[in-house]
Amino acid sequence: MNFNESEPIKVQMERLIRAKQKEIVAELETLEPTARFHADSWIRGNEGGGGTSMVLQDGDTFEKGGVNISVVHGILPPQAIDKMRADHKNLSGSGIDGSAKFFACGLSMVLHPNNPHAPTTHLNYRYFEIMDSETDETKAWWFGGGADLTPAYLYEEDAKRFHNEHKQALDKFDPELYPAWKKWCDKYFHITHRGETRGIGGIFFDDFDAKPPLEILRIVESCFDAFLPAYVPTVAARKDQPFTPEQKNWQQIRRGRYVEFNLVLDRGTKFGLQTPGSRTESILMSLPKTASWLYDHHPDEGSEEAKLLKVLQNPVDWV
Amino acid sequence: MNFNESEPIKVQMERLIRAKQKEIVAELETLEPTARFHADSWIRGNEGGGGTSMVLQDGDTFEKGGVNISVVHGILPPQAIDKMRADHKNLSGSGIDGSAKFFACGLSMVLHPNNPHAPTTHLNYRYFEIMDSETDETKAWWFGGGADLTPAYLYEEDAKRFHNEHKQALDKFDPELYPAWKKWCDKYFHITHRGETRGIGGIFFDDFDAKPPLEILRIVESCFDAFLPAYVPTVAARKDQPFTPEQKNWQQIRRGRYVEFNLVLDRGTKFGLQTPGSRTESILMSLPKTASWLYDHHPDEGSEEAKLLKVLQNPVDWV
Repeated sequence: MNFNESEPIKVQMERLIRAKQKEIVAELETLEPTARFHADSWIRGNEGGGGTSMVLQDGDTFEKGGVNISVVHGILPPQAIDKMRADHKNLSGSGIDGSAKFFACGLSMVLHPNNPHAPTTHLNYRYFEIMDSETDETKAWWFGGGADLTPAYLYEEDAKRFHNEHKQALDKFDPELYPAWKKWCDKYFHITHRGETRGIGGIFFDDFDAKPPLEILRIVESCFDAFLPAYVPTVAARKDQPFTPEQKNWQQIRRGRYVEFNLVLDRGTKFGLQTPGSRTESILMSLPKTASWLYDHHPDEGSEEAKLLKVLQNPVDWV
Repeated sequence: MNFNESEPIKVQMERLIRAKQKEIVAELETLEPTARFHADSWIRGNEGGGGTSMVLQDGDTFEKGGVNISVVHGILPPQAIDKMRADHKNLSGSGIDGSAKFFACGLSMVLHPNNPHAPTTHLNYRYFEIMDSETDETKAWWFGGGADLTPAYLYEEDAKRFHNEHKQALDKFDPELYPAWKKWCDKYFHITHRGETRGIGGIFFDDFDAKPPLEILRIVESCFDAFLPAYVPTVAARKDQPFTPEQKNWQQIRRGRYVEFNLVLDRGTKFGLQTPGSRTESILMSLPKTASWLYDHHPDEGSEEAKLLKVLQNPVDWV
């Protein structure tokens, strides 16, 4: 995509996520013989902006998936600004009451395949900006996001492909990004009460404003471009692999852990659910169609299930 | 049960929950042709005490259920005491570092039947005590707990039976208890981000020390005694009722909401998962074996599913 110095970053980021939503949906649909993503647009009740969710349910390949964009703006109350100030020094409310204007846009995606050999994935890239409430001047801005893979069964080549593609996407700009963001991902997706990560990781970053905004936009575009080659060949190879009822059960248990992470620990989910006027259906679209909890379940020593758990308990460097 | 003035309350409460665990398990097993509860005892790693979980999975009547007791004691750090002090004025740490001794025991139960016409239920009664760390003198104590019903399909007679039995159990002691604790239950089990309650309520109370401890012990015993007649006839009547795959799906969606409440909002679950050394398996035993999330699901106007939702959105006085 052609980015330029003359247009505001938020306009260019919005164009990027709209283009990527189309591109990703079209490519994912090649994995489905008949099922299609359906558009569901929404607007924020009393505030500005809205979004479009592209949702697929009960496909042959994907049990449930969503590729959502949202572009919202409005007034941030003083308490919300205070919470953000730790990370963003030049951030302060400019309204008489200490409030400020904000703009946020992002693409957020979760895909849960049917086949237990095909991994779940999550991707999210977002841009946030705080403006002076009188002059509209940008007072703070940052990017955040990442992509990660959550298999029920470990195939090393899938993990390596996912990490390699994202490493290459970042190395083009700065070789220090991938190692830092890979580590951040393992740390962020750690399910504390289980002593294991949600999946085999990927990349994660937040509050990123340490490079010029146009360069970060190009980095984000590069990460977006890495996703399809990082994920689609894996699903194409796994989606028709035979599986046993026991393997399906194990996938369901892992999905239970996915739910635990998202509902108990994920900051975005918690913040979203607590924010009055936020759209619960969009926030909880990330949850799998089906999940399971068994009391005190432990896979047999030496099994494929135990092999995955070991990697979740001790994150691996895949590249 | 014969309670007396001479024994410490904690000893008598422990005896009560041990007796009730046996009684409830024996009665619930009469609903199962072959499946049985299995005992799983555990001890706290570096701290004092432990518990016994009685767990049943994949029964004919119950998909998953647990009747657990725990009896634990140890040292509470100053931060935990500070958190409690708002509700318990006479509470303060007595150790040099501001810490205090505590004792806690309780019975906690969740039952998820297979049949979508048979409601899930939850019950929990607990006793908490803070002691001077040098003299062992009781500095504060309280009871908490309750019981509530979570149907996927609304049968008014089931709701009335559940509430009636608990009302009678409380009215014997004080007619003001049921109305207050019924209201507290509706408020506590409100899923804020969904604008609905988890189920059709029951009773809930916490931090209760407004009567002599021996009287509260008798009230708690009376509530325990109300549970089996409040619930067992309902399950007996519903467990073999025919149901459609669509009704099973709706049950799964309601179980998803159950998971949302427990993981996002339940104070006990959140506190438990954040406490180092706590037993995750016992805390998350409350989760159903299976649950489901569909994107933006709304039951048809006028359907049985919509009838339940209406009651969850506007709690009803059942007696």
